[in-house]
Amino acid sequence: MQLHGQNLIGNSLSKGTGAAYRGVDPTTGTDLEPAFFEAAESDVNRAMDLAAEAFDAYRRLTPADRARFLREIAIEIDKLGDELIDRANRETALGVERLRGERGRTVTQLRMFADLIEEGSWVGARIDRAIPDRKPLPKPDVRRMLIPMGPVVVFGASNFPLAFSVAGGDTASALAAGCPVVVKVHPAHPGTSELVGGAIIRAAQTCGMPNGVFSMLHGRGPEISIALVKHPKATAVGFTGSLHAGRALFDAAAARPRPIPVYAEMGSANPLFLLPGALHERGELIAQGLKQSVTVGVGQFCTKPGIVVGLDDEETGRFAGRFSQLMQSAPPGVMLHAGIHTSYLNGAKQVASIPGVNVAAAAEPAGAQAVPTLFTTDGQTFLKQPRLAEELFGPSTVLVVALSRDQLLDVARKMEGHLTATIHGTADDLRDYAELVDLLQQRVGRLIFNGFPTGVEVCPSMHHGGPYPATTDPRSTSVGTAAIERFARPICLQNFPQDALPPELRDDNPRQIWRLIDGQWTRDAVALR
Amino acid sequence: MQLHGQNLIGNSLSKGTGAAYRGVDPTTGTDLEPAFFEAAESDVNRAMDLAAEAFDAYRRLTPADRARFLREIAIEIDKLGDELIDRANRETALGVERLRGERGRTVTQLRMFADLIEEGSWVGARIDRAIPDRKPLPKPDVRRMLIPMGPVVVFGASNFPLAFSVAGGDTASALAAGCPVVVKVHPAHPGTSELVGGAIIRAAQTCGMPNGVFSMLHGRGPEISIALVKHPKATAVGFTGSLHAGRALFDAAAARPRPIPVYAEMGSANPLFLLPGALHERGELIAQGLKQSVTVGVGQFCTKPGIVVGLDDEETGRFAGRFSQLMQSAPPGVMLHAGIHTSYLNGAKQVASIPGVNVAAAAEPAGAQAVPTLFTTDGQTFLKQPRLAEELFGPSTVLVVALSRDQLLDVARKMEGHLTATIHGTADDLRDYAELVDLLQQRVGRLIFNGFPTGVEVCPSMHHGGPYPATTDPRSTSVGTAAIERFARPICLQNFPQDALPPELRDDNPRQIWRLIDGQWTRDAVALR
Repeated sequence: MQLHGQNLIGNSLSKGTGAAYRGVDPTTGTDLEPAFFEAAESDVNRAMDLAAEAFDAYRRLTPADRARFLREIAIEIDKLGDELIDRANRETALGVERLRGERGRTVTQLRMFADLIEEGSWVGARIDRAIPDRKPLPKPDVRRMLIPMGPVVVFGASNFPLAFSVAGGDTASALAAGCPVVVKVHPAHPGTSELVGGAIIRAAQTCGMPNGVFSMLHGRGPEISIALVKHPKATAVGFTGSLHAGRALFDAAAARPRPIPVYAEMGSANPLFLLPGALHERGELIAQGLKQSVTVGVGQFCTKPGIVVGLDDEETGRFAGRFSQLMQSAPPGVMLHAGIHTSYLNGAKQVASIPGVNVAAAAEPAGAQAVPTLFTTDGQTFLKQPRLAEELFGPSTVLVVALSRDQLLDVARKMEGHLTATIHGTADDLRDYAELVDLLQQRVGRLIFNGFPTGVEVCPSMHHGGPYPATTDPRSTSVGTAAIERFARPICLQNFPQDALPPELRDDNPRQIWRLIDGQWTRDAVALR
Repeated sequence: MQLHGQNLIGNSLSKGTGAAYRGVDPTTGTDLEPAFFEAAESDVNRAMDLAAEAFDAYRRLTPADRARFLREIAIEIDKLGDELIDRANRETALGVERLRGERGRTVTQLRMFADLIEEGSWVGARIDRAIPDRKPLPKPDVRRMLIPMGPVVVFGASNFPLAFSVAGGDTASALAAGCPVVVKVHPAHPGTSELVGGAIIRAAQTCGMPNGVFSMLHGRGPEISIALVKHPKATAVGFTGSLHAGRALFDAAAARPRPIPVYAEMGSANPLFLLPGALHERGELIAQGLKQSVTVGVGQFCTKPGIVVGLDDEETGRFAGRFSQLMQSAPPGVMLHAGIHTSYLNGAKQVASIPGVNVAAAAEPAGAQAVPTLFTTDGQTFLKQPRLAEELFGPSTVLVVALSRDQLLDVARKMEGHLTATIHGTADDLRDYAELVDLLQQRVGRLIFNGFPTGVEVCPSMHHGGPYPATTDPRSTSVGTAAIERFARPICLQNFPQDALPPELRDDNPRQIWRLIDGQWTRDAVALR
């Protein structure tokens, strides 16, 4: 398939400003063909206007129609076959196997949201029946459900060119909710983006979706991003990326005449605690698993464990030695793009220069490749140096050896918001460190016991979020079925006649969904009083 | 009971800066005793620090303990008896009957949230069971529920000195969620606030709550308000009041190093549409009900219908005549305070001066009393004059006569976010105007059929919110059980042993709550696979 390099404004193409850029093969540093054209401000306006028009038709479609569209996108992505994987690999160097897995996750997510809206209970229907003879005032009939917010702006993430990009979780959940989507392409994988964007447009046409239900714009600087977020017709924003960029979008959205929510997932350092019993029982297994979790995908996961905390004792000493060996022998890897690699090198240098921090496994540059790096330090130094608590994106981690149980708890107490924290311990450890469990719950979105934070299960109970600076909204998740709730809001209908109600709120419950009727969950019809 | 006029910093009192102000009887304009002392910035810091300390203990209490506290607050408020009603009436002129009703609503809300957390399903527990032998990767055990955010800042509203003030819905829902509360008193009812604040402190002491679970500060200027919202230990804000003040709090919260949510309910004009069949069937009843809804409580409800839209036909003409008579003969009333009265007079003058707007019922000042006022205009003028779509707080409304069905729909289309909209129509009208129903749903939080927007039912299905500028967060409600969700966020626990899980997530479901297990709502225990 010939790539055209243009912006997708609904079903038409635009060369925007004419300013062109190219994808880059991070392994060789060479440009990839063809050129991609940055969007003009007029493209932003056309895409958003079309999205607002499309919203009028799209939100009225049945859930079955929207589900068919989502499934058709999955089919079209699968149809791209090896061409998609090859292009993504050339643009990101993430490897064919990983990218196949990520494609699987992407189409699974699309199908999961199709299933979710077809089943229908996600709208959280609530019904309170009237009591006409209540004293002193009659009780009205009140019914409530979630409806879509409107056009959503989605930003592609560099580290998941498929699952958190053009047709990733943000796009899938917004389309499922009934919201048109305008994607801002991540410039590190423009070709991959065009292939997936084309798949969405073909699916939209096959399913007779309104023109403008999906658009996709290119832009390297912040101008197009900010213009999208500030556009009067935008109603919500989904973003995965850096704290710096996420905060800039949040600030722009909050300063609008009509503020809109920005769901920015901005990464975290994902502290991991090693308790004594666990190290004694299975130190070797933990060292191996941790090495894998730190270095998989060249450490480019927002859930990579970047801080490891143990107690100053013999078991931790033995663990540190073994873990250091494993990190030392872990192969270097090509990072997503030159900018990320430079940030990793600079960040690693900064960390290494902090007094009291040792480099226990090599951090020397190896050409274009990033070297797995283990820093070690003591609890005192960690508590004094805020830089050590920040995310360093890449295959590195900091092992913090705490002098005492109290200092270990202080390390936890000092932490800001993270996506995850992990505890390795025995049942006895967990009882001895109940306070640690409690402290960490206050600071993270997900707490893992005897596992590793990388690998985020896509399911209804998943929460991929956390207190700031992990995200801009700790109530929201960007993974799992609850992600759809970010793009919906309640509407309440009072005293409506049956035939003017949406099916979800009718007495006879034609959609057979779960509803909260007079405070009880049920799939039954509304009973007569 | 002797009022002391001091700030409540947990269980102690503070005279703050020593700067004093007094409540004012709006009927006579005279000062009321005693003096109240504005808080110092050190009071803000002490209240917030205490709240953060209290949070550590308060969030670990059982739901039964928190429920007992909420019920004890209700008991203590009831014990205040006529003293509370008398003071509130002197400070607000809302009338004894209305204030008794509002007290009933306040204690009912406290008991409703006590019931809600005792029942327990509000935490939205979700469980996905492990599949250890899943290929290619095992599925972990993932469980999720809502936990409290942390200290919440609540602003008292002038127009509901009980139900949306010191122990109102924001405070009740935050305390129910497990969050300590720091209230900023509305300076229009400081004595009422002190009485209710004292009731909360007594309840806290009776129930052995941690010191700092509740504090209450006085302050007339914006300084104390902004200091509270910007305090590093604040985690969320509840507010009901003007667009100007709500937006200032929102902006301050968004500009923090760590942004926090502001749930500001800022009022709206609550458009009401009169469709032909309804006017024909029961024009007189609608005119009477509308007059009541516009003038009740001297028009000082955020759900007062401030825009009435009809078609240019004989029925609407007849209705306008009758409604004008009713408004003309409606008695004037004393508003909450001089500032609100002045705003009403100035706003009414502005509206009256718009070319194409007529005053159909008197708007002349009557001393301290606000006169019910009916403006009339045509659709064309309404569409051209944005001031007509804004809230005018007080007993007035604008009757807009649209030339045609299309112009009536244009009027709806032009509207920004409102808390409510109302349609009066027959079943036939509703079919003919399906587009109106759809347009209004996009613009409001609650849509009422053949009723009036004033009188907000407190129940699980209620949504008292709406798109900006009605609120700063259209996903949130400040009335009804769902209000508690504003002050909670999800935590996800992965692979936790049973005895380290909170009761809500244990296999055996000791709390017997509704949970989503593998995508199905059930109150059953988790079954073995």
